[in-house]
Amino acid sequence: MSSKLIAIVAGVGAGTGASVARKFAASYPVVLMARKPENYEGLVNEINSSGGKAIGISTDVSDSKSVDNAAAQIKKEFGEDVAAAAAIFNASGFGRKPFLELTEEDFMNGFKVSGLGAFLFSKATLPLLLKGVDTGSKHPPTLIFTGATASIKGSANFAPFAAGKFAKRALSQSLAREFMPKGIHVSHVIVDGVIDIPRTKEWMQGAGPDAKMSPDAIADAYWNLHIQPRSTMTVELDVRPWVEKW
Amino acid sequence: MSSKLIAIVAGVGAGTGASVARKFAASYPVVLMARKPENYEGLVNEINSSGGKAIGISTDVSDSKSVDNAAAQIKKEFGEDVAAAAAIFNASGFGRKPFLELTEEDFMNGFKVSGLGAFLFSKATLPLLLKGVDTGSKHPPTLIFTGATASIKGSANFAPFAAGKFAKRALSQSLAREFMPKGIHVSHVIVDGVIDIPRTKEWMQGAGPDAKMSPDAIADAYWNLHIQPRSTMTVELDVRPWVEKW
Amino acid sequence: MSSKLIAIVAGVGAGTGASVARKFAASYPVVLMARKPENYEGLVNEINSSGGKAIGISTDVSDSKSVDNAAAQIKKEFGEDVAAAAAIFNASGFGRKPFLELTEEDFMNGFKVSGLGAFLFSKATLPLLLKGVDTGSKHPPTLIFTGATASIKGSANFAPFAAGKFAKRALSQSLAREFMPKGIHVSHVIVDGVIDIPRTKEWMQGAGPDAKMSPDAIADAYWNLHIQPRSTMTVELDVRPWVEKW
Amino acid sequence: MSSKLIAIVAGVGAGTGASVARKFAASYPVVLMARKPENYEGLVNEINSSGGKAIGISTDVSDSKSVDNAAAQIKKEFGEDVAAAAAIFNASGFGRKPFLELTEEDFMNGFKVSGLGAFLFSKATLPLLLKGVDTGSKHPPTLIFTGATASIKGSANFAPFAAGKFAKRALSQSLAREFMPKGIHVSHVIVDGVIDIPRTKEWMQGAGPDAKMSPDAIADAYWNLHIQPRSTMTVELDVRPWVEKW
Repeated sequence: MSSKLIAIVAGVGAGTGASVARKFAASYPVVLMARKPENYEGLVNEINSSGGKAIGISTDVSDSKSVDNAAAQIKKEFGEDVAAAAAIFNASGFGRKPFLELTEEDFMNGFKVSGLGAFLFSKATLPLLLKGVDTGSKHPPTLIFTGATASIKGSANFAPFAAGKFAKRALSQSLAREFMPKGIHVSHVIVDGVIDIPRTKEWMQGAGPDAKMSPDAIADAYWNLHIQPRSTMTVELDVRPWVEKW
Repeated sequence: MSSKLIAIVAGVGAGTGASVARKFAASYPVVLMARKPENYEGLVNEINSSGGKAIGISTDVSDSKSVDNAAAQIKKEFGEDVAAAAAIFNASGFGRKPFLELTEEDFMNGFKVSGLGAFLFSKATLPLLLKGVDTGSKHPPTLIFTGATASIKGSANFAPFAAGKFAKRALSQSLAREFMPKGIHVSHVIVDGVIDIPRTKEWMQGAGPDAKMSPDAIADAYWNLHIQPRSTMTVELDVRPWVEKW
Repeated sequence: MSSKLIAIVAGVGAGTGASVARKFAASYPVVLMARKPENYEGLVNEINSSGGKAIGISTDVSDSKSVDNAAAQIKKEFGEDVAAAAAIFNASGFGRKPFLELTEEDFMNGFKVSGLGAFLFSKATLPLLLKGVDTGSKHPPTLIFTGATASIKGSANFAPFAAGKFAKRALSQSLAREFMPKGIHVSHVIVDGVIDIPRTKEWMQGAGPDAKMSPDAIADAYWNLHIQPRSTMTVELDVRPWVEKW
Repeated sequence: MSSKLIAIVAGVGAGTGASVARKFAASYPVVLMARKPENYEGLVNEINSSGGKAIGISTDVSDSKSVDNAAAQIKKEFGEDVAAAAAIFNASGFGRKPFLELTEEDFMNGFKVSGLGAFLFSKATLPLLLKGVDTGSKHPPTLIFTGATASIKGSANFAPFAAGKFAKRALSQSLAREFMPKGIHVSHVIVDGVIDIPRTKEWMQGAGPDAKMSPDAIADAYWNLHIQPRSTMTVELDVRPWVEKW
């Protein structure tokens, strides 16, 4: 039980990723992954200066070398015996285009982050999560994927985005069935609504109060998944605002 | 904001219902409904003697007169201006029989508790939950239905049970879409596994530790639904043990 | 192989039921059930006068005595050894009302036709369908249920309708899993759109051509289910017009 | 209406693809695509020598150049104004491996045929299908994707296969919603069972008669999709043998 238990969050920006990182940082050293340092630097400083421990690693989750490099940096920082209590995959692309205007690259980009990225992230973190089981993590080590409405519905003009999101959910279900009997909690969360972040400030004006989702409340939902005992685990759930049609 | 906010739990026995009642009793006076007094008396005493407030009402949720009577008792006890912070419908029947041996009564019994019971309970509690919205409940007043695997899959020999459970989920979805924009959080929880209660003590021997679900952990999941803000609410989720195949 | 193979259609009116009856009447004597004689009389005459064989039976599918009586009339007409090649349950209620205005009767009415009716119809016809297996029906005897969007989605103000439709789908799945290994093909068809019948003549003006579903095309889909071999059977499908949003 | 209407089938081998090709060849000249000539040569000869018209094109559907080349060959053979009445994507990979043994290449291979291949095939055939609408195809031009149980369920050890199949279904739904209002019928068929082909001859011994699916019956189901009118189209269906558990 000497290994350090850490939490790893991929896809840290202004919204869910940052809130999840803050939430888990209250209990674990956290590793924040984002493509660009400006997406995590402020948060790393914030956590470190408020008594937590955080490092940031510039990572392109859809590039296996970049993910391997991130894994190496984690071991360098926390030791070869590092174990994970949680790994949260929150990275996502986006795209909307009439189908016949899509290039092969457009389609593959839709898949690269949500599909391949989720795969590479899982490959890199599952060994650490399994070590978390071995070293007696208080809560079952937890692997969480952020999904969207497009995880269960392919809408017009969203083929690449939906293909990636469906693939991520397939991966999540497959991992749940393979790794839950090994003690790892695997969950997929469908986030259906606009998240309240600076970029969406002007959106949904006139929809009334609380029409946009709170990233902190999403982070609470993720934390609540983490602390479920292995006898009673949630595998799939949705979160949506009270005013959302669905 | 002078009205009392209470929590109402239907289907209190040895498992989920009792744990949910204990959990919500830490924050609200609770009303416990069960068909027979022996199902709630001990728990009512336990809660009242440990600083909480509980009353029990013998109720057949599938009988409108019995449900009306329960509603009247609630008003008598807590006042005409009583409001609800939470209403949890945990009642359930069960049944397994080759289809051609089923009587009309068998089939209707499968529907009566899960379908009609859920309807009557909703009719009785939604006005109190709406009053909870008006009186400024800290958390969105919450209506939760306990479901099962049979809520989404009709298995051989389970026609009445599945028909009732499917109907309950239909009701839950319809109420979510009608009442969430009015401020009420409506959720449906699929409980997929054996619950660890005295009656199941001998079950699943040899399945290893934690193979049965913890009713307290289920109650935690229900409470976590209750405290979600209206901007970020979960409508459907599952809970299952780590060893369950699905 | 001396028994007569018949087809039984419940819910014969101006739309799907009538088209299905005509389609199956080209191959089998047909029994048409509807609440009121005016719903089947014209069609019975039409089929009988064009070389087919049809009888109509006034039946309330939600009343077990009425269904028992219909079963007795079938045996009286076709002999004790009558067997069925197909039984199609196309009866449906409808209803739309704010939840708090619903009476217990409203809710039960939503369930009575779609849920209880489907149960009673299945109880009455499955023995005849099993006899169809024994007597060497060319095509696997087929039990088909007509569903709707409300079979898989509970919309606001549609609680009773959705509860009944969900229950019918639960029943259909349960019967498929119990009776397909006995040689009976059980299917559930989600009909998602407005059907082109006299009553809907003024609907969807301006939606362009072919915006309403053809009852004859639905009947073709039902017939195509019937003629599938037991090695290759469809259990669930949808039909919808090209312009429908879903 | 001078353009030739053809049918294009990708993934022609011993099973579904060949049966579908034969079925559609009775009404249209057919283009058969497979990776290797030996997969289509015999069938091309069979169709051409029995009064039909077929050409085979060696195609790797996951390689855009190969698909572009196939499209060019189709125009060379049938003229620049060639239009399609049907395009059927039946290509599939397979793979089963514990997750931690999977390489990036394994994962991408799972996606390449089912995901990228379906995308490239759709890109190449949709313009021909749209031309089929313009030129008055008797039946709505039809784009059909062959799916599997893994299209809706991610099982342990099947992450790449399920990710590809989920992605294909996402694509199919997205195309249905974008192109059905333009007159193209898009369907996704879940084939759940073992198909009766030479390669599976020894499988499922002892499961009794008709335990394996008939490729000809699957082809009938595809044809029946094709001839549905645009007012009444099936978007998703399953086919399974009578003995299959699901």
